[in-house]
Amino acid sequence: MTLAVVVVSGGAVWTLTHLDLALWPIVRAASVFPMSDTSNDDRPRYVGGELVRPNDWERWIAVGASIGLSYSEGGSPHDAFHQVRITASAYDEFRRTGVFPEGTQLALEVSAVGASVLPARAGRFADCREGLEIAVKDRRAAPNGWAYYSFGDGSERTARAFPASSCSSCHRQHGATDNVFTQFYPRLRDKR
Amino acid sequence: MTLAVVVVSGGAVWTLTHLDLALWPIVRAASVFPMSDTSNDDRPRYVGGELVRPNDWERWIAVGASIGLSYSEGGSPHDAFHQVRITASAYDEFRRTGVFPEGTQLALEVSAVGASVLPARAGRFADCREGLEIAVKDRRAAPNGWAYYSFGDGSERTARAFPASSCSSCHRQHGATDNVFTQFYPRLRDKR
Repeated sequence: MTLAVVVVSGGAVWTLTHLDLALWPIVRAASVFPMSDTSNDDRPRYVGGELVRPNDWERWIAVGASIGLSYSEGGSPHDAFHQVRITASAYDEFRRTGVFPEGTQLALEVSAVGASVLPARAGRFADCREGLEIAVKDRRAAPNGWAYYSFGDGSERTARAFPASSCSSCHRQHGATDNVFTQFYPRLRDKR
Repeated sequence: MTLAVVVVSGGAVWTLTHLDLALWPIVRAASVFPMSDTSNDDRPRYVGGELVRPNDWERWIAVGASIGLSYSEGGSPHDAFHQVRITASAYDEFRRTGVFPEGTQLALEVSAVGASVLPARAGRFADCREGLEIAVKDRRAAPNGWAYYSFGDGSERTARAFPASSCSSCHRQHGATDNVFTQFYPRLRDKR
């Protein structure tokens, strides 16, 4: 007996054709299909209590872009572009449930503002990276549930969490969803 | 006889444990493993000569962000955010070789400009999507090598290529690398 089996796993669709039905339990038990096609890579890793900079944060899913966001009315004297990416497994889970799972990581890339590069005679673009910060939802690392790390200009290999006082209170008070500023991330905001 | 088999496919690592060696040819032939975990999805697909909107363009790798880029000195009367993403297979190939492979797709997402959302008292962010355009490197579809498509606000399912006159000449003349504006995409610019 042959069968076409379609398996949906972490957003990917796998089609098995001409696979004898009798083999299916063996194939499934053999862990041919991971529960998510990304979860292997996108969970936080620590060394000596410091967060290890993820190898593939540049491949995470982009959910936000902004320029010059500032708490002060006059803005910041030094504008910067911000680009925010989230791990694929957390993106999928949040879009499905509205909840950020344990192990969620969000990367904030801070970039210099570029301008006057032809053919653009007006406007500004995100130029060289100046900073990389990562927020991690991990109850083991932070009593509040989230911890925040800076990797300098993005080249540092590990980072120690900021003291709870420096980022957490603003995120907790103003983040629209579970300490995350989803009000600036339409893909997440409109799903919460 | 049992065996642990590790398969590296498109950056993903699949571990098969307790899989009888005798089953391996059957499992492989059953297409359990795609040749790459991205190439199946990120090549252009056409229906009736029109490009099909890729299901997963939002998951492609973000390489550019800008606001208000304009060819005219005075700028555009209606600023917009632009975010550019590239297929994972093309990103990897370009970073390795400096060449965009056939089948490269770049998505340009155009977003309204949001502002005055607390806690930000200054600055602007990419709000709701207003447009989606895709550039495809495909010699079969365009004599120049690249074709350009608009999916309206992003909800249209297929798109017909723009006439060669409308996008190609500027891309060819000003795109720093093979018709692509890599001068605005630091991750690609600094690798060319």
